[in-house]
Amino acid sequence: MKIKRTVHVEDMEDIATGGAILGTGGGGDPYVGKLMAQEAIRRHAPVKIVDVDELADDALVVPVCMMGAPTVMTEKIPAGRELIVAFRKLEELLGRRIDAVLCGEAGGVNSTTPFVVAAETGLPLVDGDGMGRAFPELQMETFGMFGVKATPMVLCDDKGNSLVLDTVSNAWTERLARAATVEMGGSALLAFYAMDGATAKKCVVRGTLGLTAKLGETLREARAGHRDPVAAIVDELGAGVIFHGRIKDIERRTVGGFARGKARFEGVDEWKGHDFRLDFQNEFLVAERDGDIVVTTPDLITALEAESGNPVTADALRYGLRLKVLALPCNPLWRTPQGIDLVGPRYFGYDVDYRPLEPATAGRPCR
Amino acid sequence: MKIKRTVHVEDMEDIATGGAILGTGGGGDPYVGKLMAQEAIRRHAPVKIVDVDELADDALVVPVCMMGAPTVMTEKIPAGRELIVAFRKLEELLGRRIDAVLCGEAGGVNSTTPFVVAAETGLPLVDGDGMGRAFPELQMETFGMFGVKATPMVLCDDKGNSLVLDTVSNAWTERLARAATVEMGGSALLAFYAMDGATAKKCVVRGTLGLTAKLGETLREARAGHRDPVAAIVDELGAGVIFHGRIKDIERRTVGGFARGKARFEGVDEWKGHDFRLDFQNEFLVAERDGDIVVTTPDLITALEAESGNPVTADALRYGLRLKVLALPCNPLWRTPQGIDLVGPRYFGYDVDYRPLEPATAGRPCR
Repeated sequence: MKIKRTVHVEDMEDIATGGAILGTGGGGDPYVGKLMAQEAIRRHAPVKIVDVDELADDALVVPVCMMGAPTVMTEKIPAGRELIVAFRKLEELLGRRIDAVLCGEAGGVNSTTPFVVAAETGLPLVDGDGMGRAFPELQMETFGMFGVKATPMVLCDDKGNSLVLDTVSNAWTERLARAATVEMGGSALLAFYAMDGATAKKCVVRGTLGLTAKLGETLREARAGHRDPVAAIVDELGAGVIFHGRIKDIERRTVGGFARGKARFEGVDEWKGHDFRLDFQNEFLVAERDGDIVVTTPDLITALEAESGNPVTADALRYGLRLKVLALPCNPLWRTPQGIDLVGPRYFGYDVDYRPLEPATAGRPCR
Repeated sequence: MKIKRTVHVEDMEDIATGGAILGTGGGGDPYVGKLMAQEAIRRHAPVKIVDVDELADDALVVPVCMMGAPTVMTEKIPAGRELIVAFRKLEELLGRRIDAVLCGEAGGVNSTTPFVVAAETGLPLVDGDGMGRAFPELQMETFGMFGVKATPMVLCDDKGNSLVLDTVSNAWTERLARAATVEMGGSALLAFYAMDGATAKKCVVRGTLGLTAKLGETLREARAGHRDPVAAIVDELGAGVIFHGRIKDIERRTVGGFARGKARFEGVDEWKGHDFRLDFQNEFLVAERDGDIVVTTPDLITALEAESGNPVTADALRYGLRLKVLALPCNPLWRTPQGIDLVGPRYFGYDVDYRPLEPATAGRPCR
């Protein structure tokens, strides 16, 4: 799963596709992010990828992200400039040169946005992120579990407005940044969680950019070789297929800066006669089958088109779509009590305890 | 109406009372502001007042304010520290010493909050403000009419969170700061509209602190001399009494970070048999008598208890209260087309043109 040392325009295709798989339904439209990254690489230079262990202990590493409801991001495409503005403003604020760019969230649009900054600044991009997937809120980063503060953080919009936040907790950062993002029109770009190399080595979820590239490649090659694309992804991830069905009902609303909703499925083939429901807040959070909750956050739930294997984001769910829903275990950090407090089902208002995804939970054995 | 050159603890009483009169129903509870200022003067030093013309042209002048719904401020009293934090953060950001404190809003709590900063920092406080009254939104400052930008602006809350805003317009500053203020619990403290002395000489509404002190003194002396307090204020301001009545109905809600509502009155004495309505968004915006709009923003509408002459804020309106409602002309700057765009009735959603308050509009001739 090693990512190439240098990422060119054509490599972004696989990374964006893989990012949509790790996006677990959210994280924004990877198509938008791909175009932004490709344009930046074309205008500037290919992106140099480094392993987190290659960083000097005193290197300054800064993650970048897009924030907002994916439904909004798809229609309100950022120019890319806002990311650079946020990054450079934070650099100025910190009073020293940033040495490397980091990915805040490996899923969806944010698997590709860091490439925009790396291409334009010429800085190396670390192969890893702070989630190992996508999550809806910005305190949901492994960084915070190791004491890294989200602030000082710079938040920019497409109009030229910017905010510098300095808060008492990462949860407060989320609250204030979310309110600003809503006011800015539903999406914003940010640089945050500045940390040194030594800290990054402890808290970065490693290899996630490589994993996105590998997932994209797997899907592309399966199609070219006329093999079952979904099966290829399942094999690559060691995932379980928890449902195969057709969407019969979908409700969604953009509220509080999030895309929230539920999709109901009726089973087909091996799942004929069964019901299934997917709940989302940007990302897929909970999967319920025949009235039983079978997978919850922080384990990953991702939906692929049954035929093509194309990952489907929550905002692209629509009546009649036939999907295979995959589940796979989250990074072990999320399974600690501190991790469950941050991203477990109770945080999102579900009155259930987190039960780690086991092979028996999936429709077919997980690997 | 000259204010004393040095303001001591005991002087804050009159200033707070007068501030509530210019507060036109809003601007926050002057009692809270008075306590904050008295405490700061007691702990530090009396406040030196300067005329805007005494400032050097290159002096750096910074207004301070409290922002939020008055209903919230009364229950969630700021410690005073937040104002100093905001002020010092802005100073650091500007990279040079601030030379004088300015009042952003002469009405309500904000007629006294600048004394907190002046007392603690030892800096002189300019006798004037950016409104000549209170208004609900922060782009409603004469400063902006002379090209002064509200940003860089620092916004702080009581928990230790702070934001630095850098926006493309003062209207955007209001939007983003309001969203943050709501998230911060409904009130926040800020330093903004940094300007030089030369600019201050052009855009400051002069003498408003002196006017608040004089109004407070007038009320106090009228009571001590057993004269009609309301008549004394009417004389001092050259105001007109547009109604005398009892509140028969009051509706209010805190929405979007503002205290909004309507109070309905039935006339007493000379206004018996007549109806009256006061609409407010923090401040009193529109007065309607017998179905006709008689006064609108930006002219000042202020309500005094009929017997005591005590100014009554919108959040203190309650069933049965007997009030005399006064109207007086706003600063001429607000009557320009640019001023009306910012604070005229149409801005607040009323489908009426602004008609400057004339003597005939009031129940008794204005002077």
